[in-house]
Amino acid sequence: MHVTHLECSKCKATYDSDQPAQLCEKCGAPLLVRYDLAKAKADLSKESLKNRKPDLWRYRELLPVEKEENIVTMGEGMTPLLPLKKVGSEIGVNNLFLKDEGILPTGSFKARGAAVGVSRAKELGVKVLAMPTAGNAGGAWSAYCTSAGIEAVIVMPEDAQEINIRECLATGGTTYLVKGIINDAGQIVAQAVKDYGWYDASTLKEPYRIEGKKTMGFEIAEQMGWDVPDVLLYPTGGGVGIIAIQKALQELKQIGWIGDKMPRLVSVQSSACAPIPKAWEEKKAECDYWQDVQTKIPGLRVPKALGDFLVLKSIYETNGCAVAVSDQEALEAQQRLAATEGTFICPEGGSTLAAAEKLVAKGWIKPDEKVVLLNTGSGLKYPDTVQAKPLCIDINDKLPKC
Amino acid sequence: MHVTHLECSKCKATYDSDQPAQLCEKCGAPLLVRYDLAKAKADLSKESLKNRKPDLWRYRELLPVEKEENIVTMGEGMTPLLPLKKVGSEIGVNNLFLKDEGILPTGSFKARGAAVGVSRAKELGVKVLAMPTAGNAGGAWSAYCTSAGIEAVIVMPEDAQEINIRECLATGGTTYLVKGIINDAGQIVAQAVKDYGWYDASTLKEPYRIEGKKTMGFEIAEQMGWDVPDVLLYPTGGGVGIIAIQKALQELKQIGWIGDKMPRLVSVQSSACAPIPKAWEEKKAECDYWQDVQTKIPGLRVPKALGDFLVLKSIYETNGCAVAVSDQEALEAQQRLAATEGTFICPEGGSTLAAAEKLVAKGWIKPDEKVVLLNTGSGLKYPDTVQAKPLCIDINDKLPKC
Repeated sequence: MHVTHLECSKCKATYDSDQPAQLCEKCGAPLLVRYDLAKAKADLSKESLKNRKPDLWRYRELLPVEKEENIVTMGEGMTPLLPLKKVGSEIGVNNLFLKDEGILPTGSFKARGAAVGVSRAKELGVKVLAMPTAGNAGGAWSAYCTSAGIEAVIVMPEDAQEINIRECLATGGTTYLVKGIINDAGQIVAQAVKDYGWYDASTLKEPYRIEGKKTMGFEIAEQMGWDVPDVLLYPTGGGVGIIAIQKALQELKQIGWIGDKMPRLVSVQSSACAPIPKAWEEKKAECDYWQDVQTKIPGLRVPKALGDFLVLKSIYETNGCAVAVSDQEALEAQQRLAATEGTFICPEGGSTLAAAEKLVAKGWIKPDEKVVLLNTGSGLKYPDTVQAKPLCIDINDKLPKC
Repeated sequence: MHVTHLECSKCKATYDSDQPAQLCEKCGAPLLVRYDLAKAKADLSKESLKNRKPDLWRYRELLPVEKEENIVTMGEGMTPLLPLKKVGSEIGVNNLFLKDEGILPTGSFKARGAAVGVSRAKELGVKVLAMPTAGNAGGAWSAYCTSAGIEAVIVMPEDAQEINIRECLATGGTTYLVKGIINDAGQIVAQAVKDYGWYDASTLKEPYRIEGKKTMGFEIAEQMGWDVPDVLLYPTGGGVGIIAIQKALQELKQIGWIGDKMPRLVSVQSSACAPIPKAWEEKKAECDYWQDVQTKIPGLRVPKALGDFLVLKSIYETNGCAVAVSDQEALEAQQRLAATEGTFICPEGGSTLAAAEKLVAKGWIKPDEKVVLLNTGSGLKYPDTVQAKPLCIDINDKLPKC
């Protein structure tokens, strides 16, 4: 393992990486994992990757798990990068791709953060961890913790989707439903963490989830022949993925596997909860708390992310932007993708297509640019987004010709 | 492409492969695709696979699609082969693995058959296809047909799972619900095929679905270092997969990539619909129609498969066996896997663990044998199998210590 230390993303204070760590003790910001990249470069070659399994552990020299026996895996990683020829042509982008994270264990990109986060927690001797969640993170962390032999305490708001609740229960998480909203779940977890010394696995409150999400960036670069797209659109709730993808590409640049070019990173949110687009329009370094969260899209219901300043930094540094689309636009884009390309993705993923269309109309995306939409989960976890009804027939009916 | 012709699986009559074909015109049995394996061997090397994407098209020399432009793909294939250390140790199998087909586009192994079947249908100029389905096949064929620009007419019994109906609708299939059972759906499709000349994509009524399913066998062999397990357990409805896996391994043997050893193939069904175990116990070459289908496990509700004689043949030829487990045993095994290993699979997949346990108890499976359980789909498509309930708390409650 080539981890050297943990570094505060804000005040740059450093911490040992061989103890469980949460937020920076000095300023309360998230910690980032730092590596001896020269050593990693010496130990890893593009050629050697060819002999490795198509899961995210193929990049193990750039991941924070020391001993192989601590790796907790369900085969996560190397999700497809699908060309969207039909939809691309419809919206005027000749090289449009979908990085489809719905095809992962637990049906969402949360599996990456959980695989690496839980593996490292196991390595550090964690016995119990807790987290608030409104959706896919709960199922993923519950599943990987069970595999690791760690007890996962998952606290969800009562309006969480039924499938997410059932997934946590099935995979052995101790699952609580609180009569309140996600913030209430967060406070209950914070109290228990304080009272019992549990490991806090809330978004960005431990440093290793980012490392798992980073592998999305590694894979996109590898799948593009060690190149990067011109534009990458990311549906943003907590924002871990966009921070992680930038970190991944910076690390690849430092080991010389890709050039200086970075994709313009685009953060997409719902206009019914758009703290990042608002801050970006106002050229601010961090967000105001979004008072009235109205979006019904579960992954986008985050009024102010702990890592908001890092998301904004990744946008500013890459000459990206932030876009708000309505829930309706996101849902229509999701349905359009399914009905045109056959890929049934989640509404969060749909928002990126809606945003790409707006950016093309503005001329911000050019027709020949390589554009990647990041889909964070499977539509199968969002059955209620399907509005169409089947045609009902009797056993003696004949089908009409078509 | 190295396809030479189609061959009847029963009477050995041969057919051209460059026209759409359905069942044998002489005897009504399914057709199998035959290849020039010497040519395929010359064109494909184990080494060259290392430079290919981790999807099922990596084996294209042994698949029936001629032109790359006809390939319809959503990145399907190379699902993980997961060691089940904890459950294996509990049931007394030291090398127990799960081939987890839940991690595929559309959430089930049906994606393989659909990817190859639809690609070849596109190549042959098919414009409309139809199929009866009670579940996952409908969603898969609907999705791939939409991607291919083929119209899919999907007919389901009214008691089909809601998620399967919605998946078909979302992905653009023309979806009918018939007030009857799966056999009624089959008859309605057969009539429309006759009336309108549609392509019949029912199980085994076209020869290419098997070719897609075959890749499960290729992958297991590749993942085991071009070796085969001692025992492979397969949940059997229509039985395409078990037929296909045997065909795959026979082809690998013929090109010299694996030795003579074949896994003992085990067909697992529900005791509430067990035509294959009954026929196997009676040493018959084909099944009686199972009059009273009581199993609630959707993929196992097949009273007599069109390819039953091929399933039985694969069992006899490999010294395998057929096992019936109760629905309750299958569901308990599914829940046990999720709660022990974290993998949330479907009840069909669960049945294989229940069957393995019975075979260990009998001494039919030895402790040091390599045993593969084939899981056909994601538990996320079976939310009703989760019986546990979350713990409800108030916003001022504290969590108990654990």
